Amino acid sequence: MTIGRLNHVGIATPSIEASIALYRDLLGATKIHEPFDLPPQGVRICFVDTPNSQIELIEPYGENSPIHGFLARNPAGGQHHLCFEVPDIHAAAADMKAKGAKVLGEPRIGAHGTPVIFVHPKDMGGVLVELMETPLGEH
Amino acid sequence: MTIGRLNHVGIATPSIEASIALYRDLLGATKIHEPFDLPPQGVRICFVDTPNSQIELIEPYGENSPIHGFLARNPAGGQHHLCFEVPDIHAAAADMKAKGAKVLGEPRIGAHGTPVIFVHPKDMGGVLVELMETPLGEH
Repeated sequence: MTIGRLNHVGIATPSIEASIALYRDLLGATKIHEPFDLPPQGVRICFVDTPNSQIELIEPYGENSPIHGFLARNPAGGQHHLCFEVPDIHAAAADMKAKGAKVLGEPRIGAHGTPVIFVHPKDMGGVLVELMETPLGEH
Repeated sequence: MTIGRLNHVGIATPSIEASIALYRDLLGATKIHEPFDLPPQGVRICFVDTPNSQIELIEPYGENSPIHGFLARNPAGGQHHLCFEVPDIHAAAADMKAKGAKVLGEPRIGAHGTPVIFVHPKDMGGVLVELMETPLGEH
């Protein structure tokens, strides 16, 4: 397996609206998408574009959101994960497992509408890594 | 001010060699640069290219490295900062200060050979943000 583009950096936040204000008003980001809910994943998402990549703002959605634990440890928010593109998610999942890395769950549809997996930070130098099948028609 | 490209994601690690092995052997990164020391900044650096951006692996250099504190809180390593490009670092520093954000120190030459500043995470949703003047001749 070979990782492709750095698709996005996931940033957890207690408030997407407050984070949008920071990226728009402090950093001057000009392309900020509409936030949307992903109830099955327990998250609310907002993409902020840079010319070459994206920031994915992530707010907890619902009581069982996996983001609550992160925010309990980092109340102001912070960097949550890195997402790299791969050509085939099932091949990537099999490759990670064959190399002994812990893959969290089975491939499922992520925020970009293509399947993703997550690799446990204990196997990636403390960094939660998302692998995402490259969206069709892009790049 | 308007941020440009996501130039790199900074990842702190207790061992650049161990992290290189992860990015090369687990994720299959194919373009990994030679590590080098930046004694004035107290860091050893290694860039891992993706097709659109870079990972900057950061290991402490010397007893006074600013990375020691991060690794004390995150012994396995983890995401340390995000770096966005800006056209003019002095204009960016003035703009950040005018908007009330805490800029850490004066512009200084960073790992890419162009001047950088850092914005305190308390003003950026828990994320340490580096702003880097776009390297001449790139993009």
